[in-house]
Amino acid sequence: MYSSRKSQFRFIIALPTILPLGISMGGGVLLKISGKIINPDKPDIVRGYAEVIREITSKAYRVVVVVGGGPYARSYISCSRSIGLNQAQSDMLGIEVSRLNALLLAYAIGDDVYLPIPRGVEDVERAWSTGRTIVLGGLQPGQSTAAVAAIVAEVLGIRKVLYATDVDGIYDRDPRVYGDARKLNVVSADELPRVLSQRFEAGGYELLDPLAISIIKRSCIEVVVFNGMNPHSVYKALEGSVGTRVKPC
Amino acid sequence: MYSSRKSQFRFIIALPTILPLGISMGGGVLLKISGKIINPDKPDIVRGYAEVIREITSKAYRVVVVVGGGPYARSYISCSRSIGLNQAQSDMLGIEVSRLNALLLAYAIGDDVYLPIPRGVEDVERAWSTGRTIVLGGLQPGQSTAAVAAIVAEVLGIRKVLYATDVDGIYDRDPRVYGDARKLNVVSADELPRVLSQRFEAGGYELLDPLAISIIKRSCIEVVVFNGMNPHSVYKALEGSVGTRVKPC
Amino acid sequence: MYSSRKSQFRFIIALPTILPLGISMGGGVLLKISGKIINPDKPDIVRGYAEVIREITSKAYRVVVVVGGGPYARSYISCSRSIGLNQAQSDMLGIEVSRLNALLLAYAIGDDVYLPIPRGVEDVERAWSTGRTIVLGGLQPGQSTAAVAAIVAEVLGIRKVLYATDVDGIYDRDPRVYGDARKLNVVSADELPRVLSQRFEAGGYELLDPLAISIIKRSCIEVVVFNGMNPHSVYKALEGSVGTRVKPC
Amino acid sequence: MYSSRKSQFRFIIALPTILPLGISMGGGVLLKISGKIINPDKPDIVRGYAEVIREITSKAYRVVVVVGGGPYARSYISCSRSIGLNQAQSDMLGIEVSRLNALLLAYAIGDDVYLPIPRGVEDVERAWSTGRTIVLGGLQPGQSTAAVAAIVAEVLGIRKVLYATDVDGIYDRDPRVYGDARKLNVVSADELPRVLSQRFEAGGYELLDPLAISIIKRSCIEVVVFNGMNPHSVYKALEGSVGTRVKPC
Amino acid sequence: MYSSRKSQFRFIIALPTILPLGISMGGGVLLKISGKIINPDKPDIVRGYAEVIREITSKAYRVVVVVGGGPYARSYISCSRSIGLNQAQSDMLGIEVSRLNALLLAYAIGDDVYLPIPRGVEDVERAWSTGRTIVLGGLQPGQSTAAVAAIVAEVLGIRKVLYATDVDGIYDRDPRVYGDARKLNVVSADELPRVLSQRFEAGGYELLDPLAISIIKRSCIEVVVFNGMNPHSVYKALEGSVGTRVKPC
Amino acid sequence: MYSSRKSQFRFIIALPTILPLGISMGGGVLLKISGKIINPDKPDIVRGYAEVIREITSKAYRVVVVVGGGPYARSYISCSRSIGLNQAQSDMLGIEVSRLNALLLAYAIGDDVYLPIPRGVEDVERAWSTGRTIVLGGLQPGQSTAAVAAIVAEVLGIRKVLYATDVDGIYDRDPRVYGDARKLNVVSADELPRVLSQRFEAGGYELLDPLAISIIKRSCIEVVVFNGMNPHSVYKALEGSVGTRVKPC
Repeated sequence: MYSSRKSQFRFIIALPTILPLGISMGGGVLLKISGKIINPDKPDIVRGYAEVIREITSKAYRVVVVVGGGPYARSYISCSRSIGLNQAQSDMLGIEVSRLNALLLAYAIGDDVYLPIPRGVEDVERAWSTGRTIVLGGLQPGQSTAAVAAIVAEVLGIRKVLYATDVDGIYDRDPRVYGDARKLNVVSADELPRVLSQRFEAGGYELLDPLAISIIKRSCIEVVVFNGMNPHSVYKALEGSVGTRVKPC
Repeated sequence: MYSSRKSQFRFIIALPTILPLGISMGGGVLLKISGKIINPDKPDIVRGYAEVIREITSKAYRVVVVVGGGPYARSYISCSRSIGLNQAQSDMLGIEVSRLNALLLAYAIGDDVYLPIPRGVEDVERAWSTGRTIVLGGLQPGQSTAAVAAIVAEVLGIRKVLYATDVDGIYDRDPRVYGDARKLNVVSADELPRVLSQRFEAGGYELLDPLAISIIKRSCIEVVVFNGMNPHSVYKALEGSVGTRVKPC
Repeated sequence: MYSSRKSQFRFIIALPTILPLGISMGGGVLLKISGKIINPDKPDIVRGYAEVIREITSKAYRVVVVVGGGPYARSYISCSRSIGLNQAQSDMLGIEVSRLNALLLAYAIGDDVYLPIPRGVEDVERAWSTGRTIVLGGLQPGQSTAAVAAIVAEVLGIRKVLYATDVDGIYDRDPRVYGDARKLNVVSADELPRVLSQRFEAGGYELLDPLAISIIKRSCIEVVVFNGMNPHSVYKALEGSVGTRVKPC
Repeated sequence: MYSSRKSQFRFIIALPTILPLGISMGGGVLLKISGKIINPDKPDIVRGYAEVIREITSKAYRVVVVVGGGPYARSYISCSRSIGLNQAQSDMLGIEVSRLNALLLAYAIGDDVYLPIPRGVEDVERAWSTGRTIVLGGLQPGQSTAAVAAIVAEVLGIRKVLYATDVDGIYDRDPRVYGDARKLNVVSADELPRVLSQRFEAGGYELLDPLAISIIKRSCIEVVVFNGMNPHSVYKALEGSVGTRVKPC
Repeated sequence: MYSSRKSQFRFIIALPTILPLGISMGGGVLLKISGKIINPDKPDIVRGYAEVIREITSKAYRVVVVVGGGPYARSYISCSRSIGLNQAQSDMLGIEVSRLNALLLAYAIGDDVYLPIPRGVEDVERAWSTGRTIVLGGLQPGQSTAAVAAIVAEVLGIRKVLYATDVDGIYDRDPRVYGDARKLNVVSADELPRVLSQRFEAGGYELLDPLAISIIKRSCIEVVVFNGMNPHSVYKALEGSVGTRVKPC
Repeated sequence: MYSSRKSQFRFIIALPTILPLGISMGGGVLLKISGKIINPDKPDIVRGYAEVIREITSKAYRVVVVVGGGPYARSYISCSRSIGLNQAQSDMLGIEVSRLNALLLAYAIGDDVYLPIPRGVEDVERAWSTGRTIVLGGLQPGQSTAAVAAIVAEVLGIRKVLYATDVDGIYDRDPRVYGDARKLNVVSADELPRVLSQRFEAGGYELLDPLAISIIKRSCIEVVVFNGMNPHSVYKALEGSVGTRVKPC
């Protein structure tokens, strides 16, 4: 019910410093969710993430969510290419879909979310000024939403990115090719380019593009890559008990 | 120290919920005030509404106010027609006057109001993100400020609209024509179009236009139409002891 | 004198006009295209409309295009409902999809299009100030893109709306039910509500909702409803040789 | 073909320069009109100014119009004071009325006007980028619309301001007090503060406030103050055959 | 009751007030800092002011900061003049530098600051709606940042401006010329124009220009001019134990 | 002189197709100028570039200019680091300086430039809609202005970037170390990362960062890197007779 949730929210925000979750706290956490997870074909997952995000927010975390474009973006991009639009225009269409997914998730989270969906870094700063949960999609052609996650985390001084995708983590070799590929628990950012040459994702941009990697390194932002098809995995990712932790520095 | 100040601050904001008014609470209430009531010719009423709105806000209600254009809008619209502007342009001028009235009331309410006056639905969402009282006028040509009230209530999930106008409620017949016209205490939204064919208001749009009616029906938003020439009637309208209640569903 | 300068201006833009279409010219035309026609699943149609719009623009017409949401909007709206969002939020998601379709078509048309996609009536006025072709989607919850078309036409003083949808026009009875239903060549706006009670479209809003009808009547905007699955039908609709003409006044 | 249409278009736009009005041209002219002249109580004057502005624009002048608040502004300001708002808030309300008057005039002028009404200096620069006629009202509390006229002229590099008000020019003494007051044909900006201590205008700000004077001096902007109750006087003011010319440098 | 909640709200935020500074409190204070003090050549001073502002904010004061352009502005303005740009353009460049200095200080203050830097009065009102500390630079050509300080204070109802510059206060005569010039502890706003004809500042605008003076007079805003090269002087200025107090009314 | 330049402009735009420069034309060219070249310490160069850009524009080219931050950016970034701001904040300050340089150049170019300076990709698209010359600085933290140049070129469909910096081109080895380093006339984009590991530029970002390289490759955008300390070198760069040409595909 609305009013009770609201008052709890208020109450909880106050608590944090007193009753931590047993998880190290650092002000804010950025949750990057693949568009393969958050999209209109998966209403249960959208609802599940909305609940998890409200829950985490109530536990003293300031949460920023970056959502990808997913299959609907791919439809628009594929049409874009077949009619001869340029790469930047294809990217812009994909970005709009990611913003659409962000709006869907934002509405599902409810009243404590900043609206409208931020469309640039200054919008993100303005949203941050209100104290609300922020949900956004892409920002600019030529960069993945993983890069957006890194940039936004850096701008807001957030040191931890939880990266929910549809693989269990980063492997030492491409698991689709090598049966004996081994999931890594930790990998240093310096090793990423070599490991990621496997390019796990089908859609244009790899898991972590060079821009994302350079930013997490220069600002020492930890990234946990994990399988987020089940929204509750976010709790485990927060604790560090699933996925692969990318050591940035 | 900063963090302690912050938690206390949050705690206090929450207090109201502990000391309710004895009125059922549902998060938010939308107050629609006719431009015949809020305009610069009636400073006492403007001041009175400002006080009432501050008072209600302090009683745990989140308040959104939609103000109409009134006589000043009619001056601009009349000029607009006499120089041959089109209907949409006349409407735009009327909308600007309603925003002017909204600004007048907003300044009178004071510090807890969101400024500048929202000019579109996304602005309303942005304003809502700050937690402030919102005051706005019209939004778009072709719709009454009653429709604006319905749309904004729906967008923000508000289920109760108090509609302050210069008649005592909705009558079974036009009270200006029939001496024995009877004020209705309750009327269903389905019956409205028939009853309202009397068109109580002089200015372009009837009391509740078809768009407003269709929205309150589809989202089950209760509307209380009451005589708001005395700002204190708002308390009675909140309690349901004056005017006509429109049962939406 | 103003109007003559104006027409000269238009004339010149139109010099290309050296090859007029043999169609009466009146400054501007608004093309409303259903989202069932313009969407990423139909790249050939998108490309076809882009060509037709460029062609018409070169023939002295100032063109404004309003695009609907179509099947992708329905996916988001269906998800929205299944997770319990309200009607306004569902509408907002649908509006964003219509803007996405508008962006796709705008990129396909190319350089002479105003960008970014206008999101409100003031944006439309700003876009109009540049002299470019305007493409937009929805504007506000609670109204169909047909209503958007009517409002935008009225704001810009456009008197002719070409309404491309997936039916051949307006029938005297529901053609899906009655084998002997007859397509009307002309219908008056006053008769529309009765005729349209058949509600040809599946998606939430009927072909012409009450708001759209009231605007075309008050500003005498002619609407031609026609089957637009083939982009070249636009030329015929301009000539009035296909579809149903709605006589507004 | 596109490029040929484009070049022709440009060529024509330039034609006016070939058919000047017999008036010296300097790129642009700023017309400042008192709110006592442009307001909804005077539809004929609004229509008259719209015609004159279209005419001048067609004669190669780029025109920028700054409109004042007038009697409607005074109503809002008077209410503002009686309910205890501060001076800046009163000014803001007056500024909104001046924008409303600007919108009324802009709609009357028609298609070649930039919309929406600019609300700040950057908006004015953006409007200027489109090549359209610009109409605006006030910009900021604490300054008269005469100061706005001076600032906007300076920003856009305009060297001539035509100042339409309800007096015939600047007098050597207050003409309402001294029967033998003499209208000056020319006055230097340096002498203005002394002469204007008579303060001809009733509404808060004098004819030319210190800010306006300092700007016309520093950028050498000529101002012609004239009686503009008859819109056709603008032609005479352009020629310099009516009113008082303020020599700025 | 509203006003009591309000005062409680203020009280809490104000906990500080339990630990007052021994200073009278009135809701908000505006700190105007010369660009000679806040600029990238003086990182220690920037850091110092950031700390002082955070400290004051925690002591119940709502703080708004207006920063000037300083030496970097002078570089751009000097270039602007040498290439022949007009005065308004020079001013605009100087305003952008003051916004840059404002951004530098805002980032130094940290999370409780509103971002992005407000660029107009409506932006300032929007920023005020969030409850955050506001930092801004200039607003409009033709006015000093001292005038900006006065306007913003007036808009927000702030009655006290602390004016940090590089002189110890206002002198009865120009201290650079007269060895026996005496610093004034108090000066009335009416006397300012005479005293300030000495023009202490090198950069275009004097310490308090006529616009600033007229606003502090009309809204009775007290200004304390003090030497702010040491950030801790702000505390003394708050107490009134340094600099010159300008009695506005 | 203004009016003659203006009419010439109009005239010239028309000419192009008739009197080409003897240079292949492709609609638009993007000129990227290092902040080491365009900054307030070099008024003659600013004026020179303004002239060259006006000249090129008159020769049928649509010109977009991206300006870097240069030494003033470095001052702000250095201060930012010394007070402990994060990398994104340092970048934001540098971006604001690049926008300041862009504004300086834009004012110098004059009337045909779009203002205000675009702050995001959608702003760039809006500016493009007006047909004006566009001047901008940086867009987002984490990317060089070279990347901005590549992104903007891609968005607008521009295939040629002229990159004015303070080195004569790209060398096979670092010319500051190896006396026998040889300037390359052509280099393929694939070879760039290896060659550029020498990192010619001192300021944070190398000559062409990985993001810039990946975009010029994917959209086949040719880049000519040349010494732009003399504005007239732009003509030679257009002809391809100076600097190093980066073959993108």
